[in-house]
Amino acid sequence: MASSPKAVVLLSGGLDSATCLALAARDGFDLYALTLRYGQRHAAEVDAARRVAERQGVRRHLILDVDLAAIGGSALTAIDLAVPKGGLAAGIPSTYVPARNTIFLAIALGWAESLGARDLFMGVNAIDYSGYPDCRPAFIAAFEQLANLATRAGVDGERFRIHAPLQHLTKVEIVRQGLALGVDFARTRTCYDPDADGRGCCLCDACRLRLAAFAEVGVADPAPYQDLVIAVPP
Amino acid sequence: MASSPKAVVLLSGGLDSATCLALAARDGFDLYALTLRYGQRHAAEVDAARRVAERQGVRRHLILDVDLAAIGGSALTAIDLAVPKGGLAAGIPSTYVPARNTIFLAIALGWAESLGARDLFMGVNAIDYSGYPDCRPAFIAAFEQLANLATRAGVDGERFRIHAPLQHLTKVEIVRQGLALGVDFARTRTCYDPDADGRGCCLCDACRLRLAAFAEVGVADPAPYQDLVIAVPP
Repeated sequence: MASSPKAVVLLSGGLDSATCLALAARDGFDLYALTLRYGQRHAAEVDAARRVAERQGVRRHLILDVDLAAIGGSALTAIDLAVPKGGLAAGIPSTYVPARNTIFLAIALGWAESLGARDLFMGVNAIDYSGYPDCRPAFIAAFEQLANLATRAGVDGERFRIHAPLQHLTKVEIVRQGLALGVDFARTRTCYDPDADGRGCCLCDACRLRLAAFAEVGVADPAPYQDLVIAVPP
Repeated sequence: MASSPKAVVLLSGGLDSATCLALAARDGFDLYALTLRYGQRHAAEVDAARRVAERQGVRRHLILDVDLAAIGGSALTAIDLAVPKGGLAAGIPSTYVPARNTIFLAIALGWAESLGARDLFMGVNAIDYSGYPDCRPAFIAAFEQLANLATRAGVDGERFRIHAPLQHLTKVEIVRQGLALGVDFARTRTCYDPDADGRGCCLCDACRLRLAAFAEVGVADPAPYQDLVIAVPP
Protein backbone atom coordinates (compact mmCIF):
# COMPACT_ATOMS: atom_id res chain seq x y z
CA MET A 1 0.00 0.00 0.00
CA ALA A 2 1.42 3.35 -0.98
CA SER A 3 1.76 5.72 1.95
CA SER A 4 0.02 9.09 1.89
CA PRO A 5 2.01 12.03 0.56
CA LYS A 6 3.34 14.35 3.24
CA ALA A 7 2.29 17.97 3.56
CA VAL A 8 3.74 20.72 5.73
CA VAL A 9 0.93 22.94 7.03
CA LEU A 10 1.57 26.32 8.64
CA LEU A 11 -0.51 26.38 11.78
CA SER A 12 -0.89 29.60 13.74
CA GLY A 13 -3.71 28.35 15.91
CA GLY A 14 -6.25 30.69 14.35
CA LEU A 15 -9.49 29.99 12.57
CA ASP A 16 -7.97 30.11 9.08
CA SER A 17 -5.03 27.80 9.69
CA ALA A 18 -7.21 25.26 11.56
CA THR A 19 -9.54 25.13 8.56
CA CYS A 20 -6.56 24.88 6.20
CA LEU A 21 -5.22 21.93 8.21
CA ALA A 22 -8.60 20.20 8.01
CA LEU A 23 -8.62 20.72 4.23
CA ALA A 24 -5.16 19.15 3.90
CA ALA A 25 -6.42 16.17 5.94
CA ARG A 26 -9.50 15.88 3.73
CA ASP A 27 -7.22 15.83 0.68
CA GLY A 28 -5.46 12.76 2.07
CA PHE A 29 -2.14 14.21 3.17
CA ASP A 30 -0.03 12.96 6.04
CA LEU A 31 0.16 16.11 8.17
CA TYR A 32 3.26 17.89 9.45
CA ALA A 33 2.17 21.03 11.27
CA LEU A 34 4.59 23.92 11.69
CA THR A 35 4.07 26.69 14.21
CA LEU A 36 6.45 29.62 14.38
CA ARG A 37 6.90 31.28 17.75
CA TYR A 38 8.06 34.65 16.48
CA GLY A 39 7.86 36.94 19.44
CA GLN A 40 4.13 37.52 19.43
CA ARG A 41 2.93 39.40 22.46
CA HIS A 42 1.13 36.36 23.76
CA ALA A 43 1.43 32.59 23.99
CA ALA A 44 -2.30 31.94 23.51
CA GLU A 45 -1.83 31.36 19.78
CA VAL A 46 0.83 28.71 20.26
CA ASP A 47 -1.29 26.89 22.86
CA ALA A 48 -4.20 26.98 20.42
CA ALA A 49 -1.99 25.54 17.68
CA ARG A 50 -1.08 22.64 19.98
CA ARG A 51 -4.74 21.88 20.69
CA VAL A 52 -5.70 22.10 17.01
CA ALA A 53 -2.81 19.85 15.91
CA GLU A 54 -3.73 17.26 18.53
CA ARG A 55 -7.36 17.20 17.50
CA GLN A 56 -6.46 16.83 13.82
CA GLY A 57 -4.11 13.92 14.51
CA VAL A 58 -1.02 15.35 12.85
CA ARG A 59 2.01 13.11 12.39
CA ARG A 60 4.26 15.72 13.91
CA HIS A 61 3.91 19.26 15.24
CA LEU A 62 7.09 21.32 15.11
CA ILE A 63 7.16 24.55 17.09
CA LEU A 64 10.14 26.63 16.05
CA ASP A 65 11.44 29.89 17.44
CA VAL A 66 12.42 32.80 15.25
CA ASP A 67 12.67 36.12 17.00
CA LEU A 68 10.95 38.55 14.65
CA ALA A 69 10.57 41.05 17.48
CA ALA A 70 14.32 41.68 17.00
CA ILE A 71 13.72 43.01 13.48
CA GLY A 72 10.95 45.32 14.68
CA GLY A 73 8.34 47.11 12.66
CA SER A 74 5.08 45.57 13.88
CA ALA A 75 2.47 46.14 16.54
CA LEU A 76 2.16 42.35 16.84
CA THR A 77 5.67 41.91 18.20
CA ALA A 78 6.48 45.30 19.74
CA ILE A 79 5.49 46.17 23.29
CA ASP A 80 5.50 49.90 22.55
CA LEU A 81 3.14 49.86 19.57
CA ALA A 82 -0.57 49.60 20.29
CA VAL A 83 -2.78 47.12 18.43
CA PRO A 84 -5.38 49.25 16.61
CA LYS A 85 -8.93 48.72 17.88
CA GLY A 86 -10.90 51.39 16.11
CA GLY A 87 -12.22 49.16 13.34
CA LEU A 88 -10.90 48.18 9.92
CA ALA A 89 -9.16 51.02 8.11
CA ALA A 90 -7.81 51.38 4.58
CA GLY A 91 -4.18 50.47 3.83
CA ILE A 92 -1.73 48.16 5.53
CA PRO A 93 -2.29 48.02 9.30
CA SER A 94 0.41 48.36 11.97
CA THR A 95 -0.12 44.69 12.85
CA TYR A 96 1.62 43.80 9.59
CA VAL A 97 4.85 41.94 10.45
CA PRO A 98 7.49 42.77 7.82
CA ALA A 99 7.95 39.83 5.45
CA ARG A 100 6.32 37.42 7.91
CA ASN A 101 4.70 35.10 5.40
CA THR A 102 7.89 35.01 3.32
CA ILE A 103 9.84 33.95 6.41
CA PHE A 104 7.20 31.39 7.43
CA LEU A 105 6.98 29.83 3.96
CA ALA A 106 10.78 29.75 3.69
CA ILE A 107 11.08 27.77 6.93
CA ALA A 108 8.19 25.51 5.88
CA LEU A 109 9.99 24.92 2.59
CA GLY A 110 13.17 23.91 4.38
CA TRP A 111 11.29 21.44 6.58
CA ALA A 112 9.37 20.09 3.58
CA GLU A 113 12.55 19.48 1.66
CA SER A 114 14.09 17.74 4.63
CA LEU A 115 10.99 15.53 5.10
CA GLY A 116 10.60 14.75 1.42
CA ALA A 117 7.26 16.60 1.33
CA ARG A 118 6.39 18.50 -1.84
CA ASP A 119 3.17 20.15 -0.65
CA LEU A 120 2.92 23.19 1.59
CA PHE A 121 -0.35 24.56 2.93
CA MET A 122 -0.96 28.04 4.25
CA GLY A 123 -4.27 29.55 5.31
CA VAL A 124 -3.82 32.97 3.76
CA ASN A 125 -6.85 34.70 2.53
CA ALA A 126 -6.98 37.35 -0.15
CA ILE A 127 -10.49 38.63 0.41
CA ASP A 128 -10.70 39.34 4.12
CA TYR A 129 -6.95 39.73 4.26
CA SER A 130 -7.03 42.89 6.26
CA GLY A 131 -4.58 44.65 3.94
CA TYR A 132 -1.47 42.47 4.19
CA PRO A 133 0.60 42.42 0.98
CA ASP A 134 1.87 38.89 1.63
CA CYS A 135 -1.61 37.37 1.51
CA ARG A 136 -2.16 38.13 -2.16
CA PRO A 137 -2.38 35.39 -4.81
CA ALA A 138 0.53 36.93 -6.74
CA PHE A 139 2.70 36.51 -3.66
CA ILE A 140 1.83 32.82 -3.30
CA ALA A 141 2.52 32.21 -6.99
CA ALA A 142 5.89 33.98 -6.76
CA PHE A 143 6.85 31.92 -3.74
CA GLU A 144 6.03 28.68 -5.53
CA GLN A 145 8.29 29.72 -8.38
CA LEU A 146 11.06 30.60 -5.95
CA ALA A 147 10.69 27.28 -4.11
CA ASN A 148 11.48 25.37 -7.25
CA LEU A 149 14.66 27.35 -7.84
CA ALA A 150 15.80 27.35 -4.22
CA THR A 151 15.93 23.65 -3.53
CA ARG A 152 17.56 20.37 -4.30
CA ALA A 153 14.15 19.05 -5.37
CA GLY A 154 13.83 21.88 -7.87
CA VAL A 155 17.22 21.03 -9.36
CA ASP A 156 16.13 17.40 -9.62
CA GLY A 157 13.07 18.45 -11.62
CA GLU A 158 10.50 17.86 -8.90
CA ARG A 159 7.94 20.52 -8.08
CA PHE A 160 6.80 22.06 -4.83
CA ARG A 161 3.19 23.10 -4.64
CA ILE A 162 2.07 25.94 -2.38
CA HIS A 163 -1.57 25.41 -1.49
CA ALA A 164 -3.58 28.37 -0.27
CA PRO A 165 -7.04 26.82 -0.27
CA LEU A 166 -8.67 29.72 1.56
CA GLN A 167 -7.28 32.25 -0.84
CA HIS A 168 -10.54 33.21 -2.50
CA LEU A 169 -12.93 32.47 0.36
CA THR A 170 -14.59 35.08 2.52
CA LYS A 171 -14.34 34.72 6.27
CA VAL A 172 -17.96 33.53 6.29
CA GLU A 173 -17.15 30.80 3.76
CA ILE A 174 -14.13 29.75 5.82
CA VAL A 175 -16.26 29.36 8.95
CA ARG A 176 -18.80 27.31 6.99
CA GLN A 177 -16.05 25.17 5.46
CA GLY A 178 -14.47 24.56 8.86
CA LEU A 179 -17.78 23.62 10.44
CA ALA A 180 -18.49 21.21 7.57
CA LEU A 181 -15.11 19.53 8.18
CA GLY A 182 -15.68 19.25 11.91
CA VAL A 183 -13.08 21.82 12.98
CA ASP A 184 -13.41 22.50 16.70
CA PHE A 185 -13.25 26.28 16.64
CA ALA A 186 -13.27 26.36 20.44
CA ARG A 187 -9.63 25.32 20.22
CA THR A 188 -8.64 28.20 17.93
CA ARG A 189 -7.58 31.72 18.90
CA THR A 190 -7.58 34.74 16.62
CA CYS A 191 -7.25 37.89 18.73
CA TYR A 192 -4.18 40.11 18.26
CA ASP A 193 -4.30 41.26 21.87
CA PRO A 194 -5.87 38.67 24.19
CA ASP A 195 -5.90 38.94 27.98
CA ALA A 196 -3.83 36.72 30.27
CA ASP A 197 -6.44 33.96 30.02
CA GLY A 198 -6.27 34.01 26.22
CA ARG A 199 -9.69 35.64 25.83
CA GLY A 200 -10.24 37.80 22.75
CA CYS A 201 -10.51 41.61 22.98
CA CYS A 202 -13.44 41.80 20.51
CA LEU A 203 -12.06 45.07 19.12
CA CYS A 204 -8.93 44.33 17.08
CA ASP A 205 -9.30 43.70 13.33
CA ALA A 206 -8.92 39.95 13.79
CA CYS A 207 -11.68 39.72 16.43
CA ARG A 208 -13.97 41.96 14.38
CA LEU A 209 -13.63 39.89 11.22
CA ARG A 210 -14.08 36.63 13.10
CA LEU A 211 -17.07 37.68 15.17
CA ALA A 212 -18.82 39.22 12.18
CA ALA A 213 -18.35 35.98 10.23
CA PHE A 214 -19.78 33.76 12.98
CA ALA A 215 -22.67 36.20 13.35
CA GLU A 216 -23.44 35.97 9.65
CA VAL A 217 -23.24 32.17 9.67
CA GLY A 218 -25.60 32.25 12.64
CA VAL A 219 -23.44 30.13 14.93
CA ALA A 220 -22.05 31.21 18.30
CA ASP A 221 -18.25 31.55 18.26
CA PRO A 222 -17.10 29.00 20.86
CA ALA A 223 -13.77 30.78 21.56
CA PRO A 224 -13.61 32.82 24.77
CA TYR A 225 -13.95 36.61 24.72
CA GLN A 226 -13.47 39.25 27.37
CA ASP A 227 -16.98 40.70 27.16
CA LEU A 228 -20.37 39.64 25.94
CA VAL A 229 -20.56 40.84 22.37
CA ILE A 230 -23.86 42.09 21.06
CA ALA A 231 -22.86 43.24 17.61
CA VAL A 232 -19.51 44.59 16.47
CA PRO A 233 -19.46 46.03 12.97
CA PRO A 234 -16.50 44.65 10.95
CA MET B 1 23.32 66.66 3.80
CA ALA B 2 21.48 63.58 2.62
CA SER B 3 22.25 60.54 4.70
CA SER B 4 23.61 57.40 3.06
CA PRO B 5 21.08 54.78 1.99
CA LYS B 6 20.87 51.79 4.31
CA ALA B 7 21.75 48.27 3.26
CA VAL B 8 21.16 45.00 5.08
CA VAL B 9 24.14 42.69 4.51
CA LEU B 10 24.04 38.99 5.34
CA LEU B 11 27.24 38.25 7.21
CA SER B 12 28.23 34.68 7.98
CA GLY B 13 31.76 35.51 9.02
CA GLY B 14 33.29 33.76 6.01
CA LEU B 15 35.53 35.06 3.28
CA ASP B 16 32.69 35.73 0.83
CA SER B 17 30.41 37.66 3.16
CA ALA B 18 33.30 39.76 4.52
CA THR B 19 34.17 40.77 0.95
CA CYS B 20 30.50 41.42 0.19
CA LEU B 21 30.28 43.70 3.24
CA ALA B 22 33.35 45.61 2.08
CA LEU B 23 31.78 46.05 -1.36
CA ALA B 24 28.59 47.45 0.18
CA ALA B 25 30.75 49.88 2.18
CA ARG B 26 32.64 50.90 -0.96
CA ASP B 27 29.30 51.58 -2.67
CA GLY B 28 28.44 54.10 0.04
CA PHE B 29 25.80 52.25 2.01
CA ASP B 30 25.15 52.64 5.70
CA LEU B 31 25.69 49.05 6.86
CA TYR B 32 23.31 46.85 8.83
CA ALA B 33 24.89 43.41 9.20
CA LEU B 34 22.70 40.38 9.86
CA THR B 35 24.08 37.11 11.16
CA LEU B 36 21.82 34.10 11.58
CA ARG B 37 22.72 31.64 14.31
CA TYR B 38 20.95 28.65 12.84
CA GLY B 39 22.23 25.69 14.78
CA GLN B 40 25.60 25.31 13.10
CA ARG B 41 27.85 22.81 14.80
CA HIS B 42 30.21 25.53 15.91
CA ALA B 43 30.25 29.11 17.16
CA ALA B 44 33.46 30.06 15.35
CA GLU B 45 31.51 31.53 12.43
CA VAL B 46 29.44 33.84 14.62
CA ASP B 47 32.55 35.06 16.46
CA ALA B 48 34.16 35.73 13.10
CA ALA B 49 31.09 37.70 11.97
CA ARG B 50 31.39 39.86 15.08
CA ARG B 51 35.05 40.64 14.38
CA VAL B 52 34.37 41.40 10.71
CA ALA B 53 31.41 43.68 11.51
CA GLU B 54 33.47 45.58 14.06
CA ARG B 55 36.35 46.11 11.66
CA GLN B 56 34.03 47.32 8.89
CA GLY B 57 32.33 49.84 11.19
CA VAL B 58 28.76 48.69 10.66
CA ARG B 59 25.93 50.80 12.06
CA ARG B 60 24.37 47.77 13.68
CA HIS B 61 25.06 44.05 13.82
CA LEU B 62 22.00 41.92 14.53
CA ILE B 63 22.59 38.30 15.50
CA LEU B 64 19.34 36.40 15.31
CA ASP B 65 18.54 32.81 16.26
CA VAL B 66 16.57 30.49 14.03
CA ASP B 67 16.89 26.84 14.84
CA LEU B 68 17.34 25.17 11.46
CA ALA B 69 18.74 22.07 13.16
CA ALA B 70 15.11 21.36 14.13
CA ILE B 71 14.11 20.98 10.48
CA GLY B 72 17.00 18.61 9.80
CA GLY B 73 18.43 17.50 6.51
CA SER B 74 21.98 18.88 6.61
CA ALA B 75 25.43 17.80 7.71
CA LEU B 76 26.04 21.40 8.79
CA THR B 77 23.43 21.29 11.54
CA ALA B 78 23.14 17.59 12.37
CA ILE B 79 25.44 15.92 14.83
CA ASP B 80 24.92 12.50 13.26
CA LEU B 81 25.83 13.43 9.68
CA ALA B 82 29.53 13.69 8.85
CA VAL B 83 30.90 16.68 6.94
CA PRO B 84 32.41 15.21 3.75
CA LYS B 85 36.18 15.60 3.53
CA GLY B 86 37.11 13.57 0.50
CA GLY B 87 37.29 16.48 -1.93
CA LEU B 88 34.71 18.21 -4.12
CA ALA B 89 32.21 15.83 -5.68
CA ALA B 90 29.51 16.28 -8.31
CA GLY B 91 25.97 17.13 -7.24
CA ILE B 92 24.55 18.83 -4.17
CA PRO B 93 26.62 18.05 -1.07
CA SER B 94 25.26 16.92 2.31
CA THR B 95 26.32 20.28 3.78
CA TYR B 96 23.43 21.88 1.86
CA VAL B 97 20.96 23.26 4.42
CA PRO B 98 17.42 22.96 3.01
CA ALA B 99 16.19 26.36 1.86
CA ARG B 100 18.81 28.17 3.94
CA ASN B 101 19.37 31.12 1.64
CA THR B 102 15.62 31.56 1.16
CA ILE B 103 15.18 31.71 4.94
CA PHE B 104 18.15 34.08 5.38
CA LEU B 105 16.99 36.45 2.64
CA ALA B 106 13.43 36.39 3.99
CA ILE B 107 14.62 37.48 7.43
CA ALA B 108 16.93 40.09 5.87
CA LEU B 109 13.95 41.37 3.89
CA GLY B 110 11.87 41.74 7.04
CA TRP B 111 14.62 43.69 8.78
CA ALA B 112 15.21 45.83 5.69
CA GLU B 113 11.55 46.73 5.49
CA SER B 114 11.49 47.60 9.16
CA LEU B 115 14.63 49.79 8.82
CA GLY B 116 13.49 51.48 5.63
CA ALA B 117 16.36 49.88 3.70
CA ARG B 118 15.73 48.89 0.09
CA ASP B 119 19.06 47.18 -0.60
CA LEU B 120 20.06 43.68 0.50
CA PHE B 121 23.52 42.21 -0.01
CA MET B 122 24.42 38.54 0.01
CA GLY B 123 27.78 37.02 -0.81
CA VAL B 124 26.53 34.06 -2.83
CA ASN B 125 28.71 32.88 -5.59
CA ALA B 126 27.55 30.97 -8.66
CA ILE B 127 30.90 29.79 -9.92
CA ASP B 128 32.60 28.21 -6.93
CA TYR B 129 29.24 27.64 -5.34
CA SER B 130 29.96 24.08 -4.41
CA GLY B 131 26.69 22.81 -5.87
CA TYR B 132 24.08 24.65 -3.78
CA PRO B 133 20.88 25.37 -5.74
CA ASP B 134 20.16 28.57 -3.78
CA CYS B 135 23.34 30.27 -4.95
CA ARG B 136 22.29 30.46 -8.60
CA PRO B 137 21.53 33.78 -10.32
CA ALA B 138 18.00 32.60 -11.18
CA PHE B 139 17.33 32.11 -7.47
CA ILE B 140 18.47 35.64 -6.62
CA ALA B 141 16.35 37.11 -9.41
CA ALA B 142 13.29 35.15 -8.24
CA PHE B 143 13.78 36.34 -4.68
CA GLU B 144 13.96 39.96 -5.80
CA GLN B 145 10.67 39.54 -7.60
CA LEU B 146 9.11 37.93 -4.54
CA ALA B 147 10.40 40.71 -2.27
CA ASN B 148 8.48 43.30 -4.22
CA LEU B 149 5.24 41.36 -3.91
CA ALA B 150 5.72 40.40 -0.25
CA THR B 151 6.10 43.80 1.31
CA ARG B 152 4.47 47.08 2.10
CA ALA B 153 7.20 48.80 0.07
CA GLY B 154 6.28 46.71 -2.94
CA VAL B 155 2.63 47.72 -2.60
CA ASP B 156 3.73 51.34 -2.41
CA GLY B 157 5.61 50.98 -5.70
CA GLU B 158 9.11 51.02 -4.23
CA ARG B 159 11.62 48.38 -5.23
CA PHE B 160 13.91 46.15 -3.24
CA ARG B 161 17.24 45.29 -4.83
CA ILE B 162 19.03 42.05 -3.99
CA HIS B 163 22.74 42.54 -4.61
CA ALA B 164 24.91 39.50 -5.12
CA PRO B 165 28.14 41.19 -6.18
CA LEU B 166 30.22 38.00 -5.96
CA GLN B 167 27.80 36.09 -8.12
CA HIS B 168 30.03 35.75 -11.15
CA LEU B 169 33.43 35.88 -9.46
CA THR B 170 35.69 32.89 -8.89
CA LYS B 171 37.06 32.31 -5.40
CA VAL B 172 40.42 33.65 -6.61
CA GLU B 173 38.78 36.86 -7.80
CA ILE B 174 36.95 37.20 -4.49
CA VAL B 175 40.21 36.93 -2.53
CA ARG B 176 41.81 39.54 -4.79
CA GLN B 177 38.80 41.85 -4.47
CA GLY B 178 38.79 41.49 -0.69
CA LEU B 179 42.52 42.19 -0.43
CA ALA B 180 42.10 45.27 -2.64
CA LEU B 181 39.38 46.58 -0.31
CA GLY B 182 41.47 45.95 2.79
CA VAL B 183 39.42 43.06 4.18
CA ASP B 184 41.22 41.50 7.12
CA PHE B 185 40.84 37.84 6.21
CA ALA B 186 42.45 36.83 9.50
CA ARG B 187 39.09 37.69 11.07
CA THR B 188 37.08 35.43 8.77
CA ARG B 189 36.32 31.70 9.18
CA THR B 190 35.23 29.37 6.44
CA CYS B 191 35.64 25.78 7.65
CA TYR B 192 32.53 23.58 7.96
CA ASP B 193 34.07 21.58 10.78
CA PRO B 194 36.60 23.60 12.78
CA ASP B 195 38.18 22.38 16.04
CA ALA B 196 37.36 23.85 19.45
CA ASP B 197 39.79 26.72 18.83
CA GLY B 198 38.06 27.62 15.55
CA ARG B 199 40.91 26.32 13.41
CA GLY B 200 40.00 25.02 9.95
CA CYS B 201 40.16 21.31 9.11
CA CYS B 202 41.77 21.88 5.67
CA LEU B 203 39.77 18.98 4.23
CA CYS B 204 36.11 20.04 3.90
CA ASP B 205 34.94 21.59 0.62
CA ALA B 206 34.99 25.10 2.10
CA CYS B 207 38.58 24.82 3.34
CA ARG B 208 39.73 23.27 0.06
CA LEU B 209 38.20 26.04 -2.08
CA ARG B 210 39.58 28.77 0.18
CA LEU B 211 43.09 27.39 0.49
CA ALA B 212 43.35 26.74 -3.23
CA ALA B 213 42.27 30.33 -3.94
CA PHE B 214 44.86 31.87 -1.58
CA ALA B 215 47.49 29.57 -3.05
CA GLU B 216 46.66 30.75 -6.55
CA VAL B 217 46.71 34.41 -5.52
CA GLY B 218 50.08 33.72 -3.92
CA VAL B 219 49.17 35.10 -0.49
CA ALA B 220 49.23 33.15 2.77
CA ASP B 221 45.77 32.63 4.23
CA PRO B 222 45.95 34.38 7.61
CA ALA B 223 43.12 32.31 9.17
CA PRO B 224 44.19 29.53 11.55
CA TYR B 225 44.25 25.90 10.43
CA GLN B 226 44.79 22.66 12.30
CA ASP B 227 47.80 21.52 10.29
CA LEU B 228 50.40 22.99 8.07
CA VAL B 229 49.02 22.70 4.57
CA ILE B 230 51.36 22.03 1.72
CA ALA B 231 48.94 21.73 -1.17
CA VAL B 232 45.36 20.54 -1.05
CA PRO B 233 43.72 19.97 -4.42
CA PRO B 234 40.26 21.61 -4.64
